[in-house]
Amino acid sequence: MNNLLGFTFILLALGSCRGLQDNDVDEEPELVFQPSKYGSLWPLPQNVQISDVSLKLSSSSFSITDAKESGAGASCGLLQLAYKRYYEYIFGGAKKQKVNRNARAGPTDLLELQVWITSPDSECDGYPSVSSDESYELTVDQPIAVLKAPKVWGALHGLETFSQLVYEDEYGTKTINSTVISDFPRFPHRGILLDTSRHFLPVKVILTNLEIMAMNKFNVFHWHIVDDPSFPYLSRTFPNLSQKGAYHPYTHVYTPADVKMVIEFARLRGIRVVSEFDTPGHTQSWGKGQTDLLTPCYSGSKPSGTFGPVNPILNSTYEFMTQFFKEISEVFPDAYIHLGGDEVSFACWQSNPDIQKFMEQQGFGKDYRKLESFYIQKLLDIVAATNKGYIIWQEVFDNGVKLKPDTVVHVWIGSGSNSEISKVTAAGYTTILSAPWYLDYISIGQDWLNYYKVEPLNFNGTEEQKKLVIGGEACMWGEYVDATNLTPRLWPRASAVAERLWSAKEVTDTGDAFSRLSLHRCRLVERGIPAEPLTPSFCLHEYKGI
Amino acid sequence: MNNLLGFTFILLALGSCRGLQDNDVDEEPELVFQPSKYGSLWPLPQNVQISDVSLKLSSSSFSITDAKESGAGASCGLLQLAYKRYYEYIFGGAKKQKVNRNARAGPTDLLELQVWITSPDSECDGYPSVSSDESYELTVDQPIAVLKAPKVWGALHGLETFSQLVYEDEYGTKTINSTVISDFPRFPHRGILLDTSRHFLPVKVILTNLEIMAMNKFNVFHWHIVDDPSFPYLSRTFPNLSQKGAYHPYTHVYTPADVKMVIEFARLRGIRVVSEFDTPGHTQSWGKGQTDLLTPCYSGSKPSGTFGPVNPILNSTYEFMTQFFKEISEVFPDAYIHLGGDEVSFACWQSNPDIQKFMEQQGFGKDYRKLESFYIQKLLDIVAATNKGYIIWQEVFDNGVKLKPDTVVHVWIGSGSNSEISKVTAAGYTTILSAPWYLDYISIGQDWLNYYKVEPLNFNGTEEQKKLVIGGEACMWGEYVDATNLTPRLWPRASAVAERLWSAKEVTDTGDAFSRLSLHRCRLVERGIPAEPLTPSFCLHEYKGI
Repeated sequence: MNNLLGFTFILLALGSCRGLQDNDVDEEPELVFQPSKYGSLWPLPQNVQISDVSLKLSSSSFSITDAKESGAGASCGLLQLAYKRYYEYIFGGAKKQKVNRNARAGPTDLLELQVWITSPDSECDGYPSVSSDESYELTVDQPIAVLKAPKVWGALHGLETFSQLVYEDEYGTKTINSTVISDFPRFPHRGILLDTSRHFLPVKVILTNLEIMAMNKFNVFHWHIVDDPSFPYLSRTFPNLSQKGAYHPYTHVYTPADVKMVIEFARLRGIRVVSEFDTPGHTQSWGKGQTDLLTPCYSGSKPSGTFGPVNPILNSTYEFMTQFFKEISEVFPDAYIHLGGDEVSFACWQSNPDIQKFMEQQGFGKDYRKLESFYIQKLLDIVAATNKGYIIWQEVFDNGVKLKPDTVVHVWIGSGSNSEISKVTAAGYTTILSAPWYLDYISIGQDWLNYYKVEPLNFNGTEEQKKLVIGGEACMWGEYVDATNLTPRLWPRASAVAERLWSAKEVTDTGDAFSRLSLHRCRLVERGIPAEPLTPSFCLHEYKGI
Repeated sequence: MNNLLGFTFILLALGSCRGLQDNDVDEEPELVFQPSKYGSLWPLPQNVQISDVSLKLSSSSFSITDAKESGAGASCGLLQLAYKRYYEYIFGGAKKQKVNRNARAGPTDLLELQVWITSPDSECDGYPSVSSDESYELTVDQPIAVLKAPKVWGALHGLETFSQLVYEDEYGTKTINSTVISDFPRFPHRGILLDTSRHFLPVKVILTNLEIMAMNKFNVFHWHIVDDPSFPYLSRTFPNLSQKGAYHPYTHVYTPADVKMVIEFARLRGIRVVSEFDTPGHTQSWGKGQTDLLTPCYSGSKPSGTFGPVNPILNSTYEFMTQFFKEISEVFPDAYIHLGGDEVSFACWQSNPDIQKFMEQQGFGKDYRKLESFYIQKLLDIVAATNKGYIIWQEVFDNGVKLKPDTVVHVWIGSGSNSEISKVTAAGYTTILSAPWYLDYISIGQDWLNYYKVEPLNFNGTEEQKKLVIGGEACMWGEYVDATNLTPRLWPRASAVAERLWSAKEVTDTGDAFSRLSLHRCRLVERGIPAEPLTPSFCLHEYKGI
């Protein structure tokens, strides 16, 4: 095993073992660091064969190149940027010396990683989607490694995997073992939700976390961009929304250029940006800049001065939504928009005499869920007219709203969530799961194990139903999170979700996962990411920030 | 109130109010931001009078100077460094322009802060101690503010308070209101425990946290420097301890120069460094580099190859401890050493036939607490011979070990800890409290309130007993904490403990505390510290790191 894992990892092994002896806080069965035969691979690829034959990489002669036969060449900026990024990860930012192809390569040198896009359409300039082909095959052998992928999305994942195979031997030489990997994700929707309304997250922080998502093969950034506390999205059509509704109209907004930058940065890493504009609840901040959008609440026979959910009885509401979502559908290229629809409180609607009258006219009786459905139905039609698909939180489904067949229902309530996910899939809807992965809930100890042990398909349902589960998302709601603590709180806890959504169902050995994840987290730290520790342990190169 | 608090704070107020509307996670009664008449002062001084009269500070003409009558002048490096530090905090690192004393000062300009050490012995070159005078009086008036303090320690606190009084008006002008403050701490021992054994903390991280401690008027850094997982202290006398017992013998150790730097950095901020070398338990890492120090555990009639607590029956143990603590007493200038003594497991001692024989010879029967006391008693005598006082965890007291009258008993077990603290003080011992302040335990929501609401003297006992409570410590044990997440996890949660230990007993208004602490945390963020948020809210200048 020494050949395979190298000096750095052995030291870590000792460190972690020592550390665990005193781990009297953790009530889980004790996890002891035992080097995995899969080294530090995270998430674990579907098929991996690592041999004992080790090859050396020299920063002056090693290069990442396009295969001659590749469907994407030097004109594919996405790949060229990725080559640069991964070269820097592998060689720790060392400046690449002039490549000397005439130098005598030793018999144990790995000279090149050739990237071969096997499909004529590499999708280099496209956007990733839920049906993107993310598969790749990686063969590391002397003197050339080959990474084959139908599309650039698989090539990006393969580059990350290749970089994870490289380690330092005891002399500090960059080393990789002969390896054959064929890989693809178990689920196509693997997301992280960030909330930029409870706290504004500077663009830099978002970009950093997109970078870390790519290191974990996440492919969806669910941008919960606005909510009650603030409206940081700068709308071209309705600039007052952020002018009045953001925490600050200049320093705490996402300009069109910011949004574009986030989307392109994500695209270059194979990540979709799914924006969420949650209505009719969670909209207090919308009301600051858009008169008459929210329902005036009443105290007795008079308006109280406070406002409730979006006012569903005015035509102006739907005119606003039509214009607003037209803009959103143009700004965000993804095929889906998340429309929210969760946690609608009826108290304000109930207090308002105009709403009461409308309820009577419509024959809704006292069932305000019907009013909610009335609103959502109209909203869905508006958004469907923009040719976008939509994702909605589970309440919309629960309330019996008529949904397009391609609607994605986002399950967030209930431990295990078995019955909800059974119901949603029995009704034939596609679903994504977040209920077990609310990472804003924190506790002392190794809670990553709880996220890791979730089996998304462990519910009552047919095989057909299970095929409707397209993935899940780890949610980091922002009540107690901003730029100061987001990154260590999210990583590597979200990495546990990443492996559950990428790797084969059978990958459930928590001991092996612990060892690989310990090394993965130290790799993140070496790449400058403040990813927090799992247990008493150390990294050879500790975090350099504060 | 506008005059007093200024633009920045008003904006914050709006932001926080909005944010709280959606705070459905927190089960505490809702805290709403209402500007405090004490602005952003934290911890709240004992006596504060802030008038409506506002004065302006110009970075080119304002200066911090030694009063002519001061007992410490330009030769007091501690104060000169503090002037520089606080000038930079106040003016945001703006380069000081040449002071132009001939410029016409407006009638509302504050030109100078004069620092006046009133005692002939300023203690500028000394170390702070538990009996240091930390009091100060601050008078801000046109054109000169005066900070009077008997010793430099009070002056340091007064400088921090002065910096907290400065705010930006709506035009960005640095402004301060005429103010009179007289201040002193309620408790003389106000500590933070950091654990550098479960995870190694780079020196830079320790220094940053000392800096933040000073911003919160903490005055004790309890350095839990070694423990089971690793021994990062590089001992001149026994270099093998870290050579074999550290996570890494070069990259994960504190050299003598490192330790000296930490102590001096702390001293310059009025902070004591109390080192802890915990025995006889928590010593697994000691055994790596010191043969025969730990007890060999037996499996049946044979040594199992594992080791237990320090071996209390060998003379060599006490010879080692004598030399070791002689070094420690010289390296650490503080009058106290923390000797630990907690959580001693008896299983290994019980398994060892030599220990069994010794127990018989001593007439200890089967009571291993007597053996533990035997060891501790000898250790205390060894340390007492170095003329140091000692602090011990409560178990040592509970086990009936004979203690010097000046021993400090550290209470860490039990919620409320009433009975333990009653017992300790009834026996006449000085005590410090940590039981309610284990900050390594985390949860979603505003747990700072729990730390804040603790009343340390709320236990059954006489007035004499209550006088024996000299303070407390917030503990950040390191199982799940390293450089990646320490700082946001500690701040501003530990700030709640800071106010409890500094301010008057009557300062218990959680609403007022919430408002001041929200602003205090934004000040920390502006000073470059990743202090995490309390609730949905924003700071005018968000954290710039990741």
